[in-house]
Amino acid sequence: MKTVVQKFGGTSVADADRIRQVADNVARTRRRGDRVVLVVSAMGKETDHLLALAKDVSSNRPGREMDMLITAGERKAVALVSMALADIGVPAASFTGSQAGFITDTNHTSAKIVEVKGDRIRSALEAGQVPVVAGSQGYSTDGDVTFLGRGGSDTTAVALAEMLGADSCELYTDVSGVFTTDPRLVPEATKIKRISFDEMLEMCATGCPKPAMRSVEYASRHGVSLHVRSAFTWEPGTWIVEEEPDMEQAVIRGITHDPSQAKVTVASLPDRPGVAGTLFRSLAERQVNVDMIVQNTSEDHKTDISFTVPHDELEATLAGVNGLLGELGASGVSASSDIARVSVIGAGMKSHPGVAAAMFETLAANEINIDMISTSTIRISCVVAEADAERAVMVLHKRFGLGQGDDAVEFGG
Amino acid sequence: MKTVVQKFGGTSVADADRIRQVADNVARTRRRGDRVVLVVSAMGKETDHLLALAKDVSSNRPGREMDMLITAGERKAVALVSMALADIGVPAASFTGSQAGFITDTNHTSAKIVEVKGDRIRSALEAGQVPVVAGSQGYSTDGDVTFLGRGGSDTTAVALAEMLGADSCELYTDVSGVFTTDPRLVPEATKIKRISFDEMLEMCATGCPKPAMRSVEYASRHGVSLHVRSAFTWEPGTWIVEEEPDMEQAVIRGITHDPSQAKVTVASLPDRPGVAGTLFRSLAERQVNVDMIVQNTSEDHKTDISFTVPHDELEATLAGVNGLLGELGASGVSASSDIARVSVIGAGMKSHPGVAAAMFETLAANEINIDMISTSTIRISCVVAEADAERAVMVLHKRFGLGQGDDAVEFGG
Repeated sequence: MKTVVQKFGGTSVADADRIRQVADNVARTRRRGDRVVLVVSAMGKETDHLLALAKDVSSNRPGREMDMLITAGERKAVALVSMALADIGVPAASFTGSQAGFITDTNHTSAKIVEVKGDRIRSALEAGQVPVVAGSQGYSTDGDVTFLGRGGSDTTAVALAEMLGADSCELYTDVSGVFTTDPRLVPEATKIKRISFDEMLEMCATGCPKPAMRSVEYASRHGVSLHVRSAFTWEPGTWIVEEEPDMEQAVIRGITHDPSQAKVTVASLPDRPGVAGTLFRSLAERQVNVDMIVQNTSEDHKTDISFTVPHDELEATLAGVNGLLGELGASGVSASSDIARVSVIGAGMKSHPGVAAAMFETLAANEINIDMISTSTIRISCVVAEADAERAVMVLHKRFGLGQGDDAVEFGG
Repeated sequence: MKTVVQKFGGTSVADADRIRQVADNVARTRRRGDRVVLVVSAMGKETDHLLALAKDVSSNRPGREMDMLITAGERKAVALVSMALADIGVPAASFTGSQAGFITDTNHTSAKIVEVKGDRIRSALEAGQVPVVAGSQGYSTDGDVTFLGRGGSDTTAVALAEMLGADSCELYTDVSGVFTTDPRLVPEATKIKRISFDEMLEMCATGCPKPAMRSVEYASRHGVSLHVRSAFTWEPGTWIVEEEPDMEQAVIRGITHDPSQAKVTVASLPDRPGVAGTLFRSLAERQVNVDMIVQNTSEDHKTDISFTVPHDELEATLAGVNGLLGELGASGVSASSDIARVSVIGAGMKSHPGVAAAMFETLAANEINIDMISTSTIRISCVVAEADAERAVMVLHKRFGLGQGDDAVEFGG
């Protein structure tokens, strides 16, 4: 008998009708002979509504109280899903994160899982019930209610799958899988059937919205295969798995783009050890999440460092850098918000050296200027003007033959 | 330093503005030098909305899941109230029923409190914080979330007051206290300053909507004085206390009416032992809540038994009685929904034998026919036609001198 963890996101349980469809799917899965554990997020836009309500009530919102508030959303959802299951004769029992045994650290609003006890989940399964677990929540080592953060339900599901040694972990969402690029930009985009953890992590890190990156990291670390699929069409989706030797080796798996970053350039830094360390330590202390970092070739013992940060952290970044200019010996700092990062991802590029050249040539042929470049062994990212970003995605998607009906790809040497 | 438990009902925390007013009142109370423990109900009509949502999702709503769902409401409210307190510099911490140490039985949707541990509440108080406790909830001896039922927040407050040995327990609501009768019917109705537990229990049992009867019973049993007052005007309300020898001895404390009952008459029962037992045992097994019971004088060894039941239990009642007619040897059963009970309550009537006569005479003088009568030592209830009930309340209120400007009362001997 297989054990399947099924996670349903907010849109999948947004109203009574959708909740009943989730229950029907659980009944179908059980008829196949599988044991099911459910993880459920808050209904629809409920978390947003709760956040807005808190903002309305108080400008001082302690993390402990925010977590008490937000976790009410999943609590409602698990109770309703359990009732819908009872209605069609499937024995079910809801569990809060605490009841399910999710012990976390005390880092409110984005707590990390310390341990998953799961005794009550195992007992419920043994009693033939479907445990319905509230996603993204736990109980801290201080005995307080904690929230794992937005998108944390995916992590809850992966952690349960690992704890139970489940055969698969299905992440049901409002998209039918992971695509070669955003299908809203490129209608020819195709659904990826299998993708490795490393590729998926690069996709997530560079703009692919689902699944939550943290859950992929957790799954990768613990070897839990994920199946991202639709709770609307119920068709097979995308499997995220450990890279296998016999895995279909596409050179390029997908193209992503991310317009949420701004570019900052610190000009004419003295080219001596410790300068970059001072700069980024200072930004880290201001909780700025620096993404790409590029240091240009030094001239006259002076160098420029450019990096990207989220738009809403730009102000804090500039304040921090301006305060450091004297200490750093830099001539100035400039910033640009109207940029976007376009990335090409694929494990196959490790053995295909022509990918970078093909990417740069394609952008040049379409008169798209490249502002910054950074690479990993399985990813190449270019920062371009935001106005060019969507066109860049389209031409790269075609160049690498990712669309339906696209020609096979050839690389110059 | 005094310790005050303050309970705020749903209308008192219905929106962000009201929540901030509650926080301001807590700050005022603390400036007086008192320690405050808060108990908060779900916001506004939230519990109703959750019930409707459950009905929408499923026709099978297990009590365990209903409790998981409903308790989300108070959880939201305590988090928001705690944030509002933080906003004005009052240190606060929210607690679920479980965290506050409310151990209950396993009777879901209307659980009874077994024990109140309250360690975390005491610690929070000692740390100078305001504990904000979710009303009407606990944790069952089976480890499940339980709900104490509608109006259970009053009971939570009383139980906390008893556990802490609090100096007073204030029940803030949308009315400014307990009135001599419903002020919507009788504009001259006056607010009662002090009332004994026994009188308040009779008021609750016969139609006075607030406070919840259960909380008065709990307070009476444990000697916790209650102060029912308004969270809108903040004026002093009604104290519910143990009867004191020097308590102002009003003959009549108030007039209530309750149109929610239907009257059932089983006709021509044989006048022999065991008949009434059989009848009411059967109704108890059908979960019918029988209220007044009157048995008429026997004629020819035959007797009629009349009783009242809630409107929505009338169908089950008639089904039950009809199935028993043969066994009982009764000639038939009849029912009437358009009745109401009008009651006159006052501990002083124990030493004033003329009250019953005065009540009957007043109703007769106003051509209001009495259908059933039942009495306790401090209450006289008459069932009248529903159409006459409000007029009955008005004339009795005047007759017993309860309104502002009414004459002093005299009783014929």
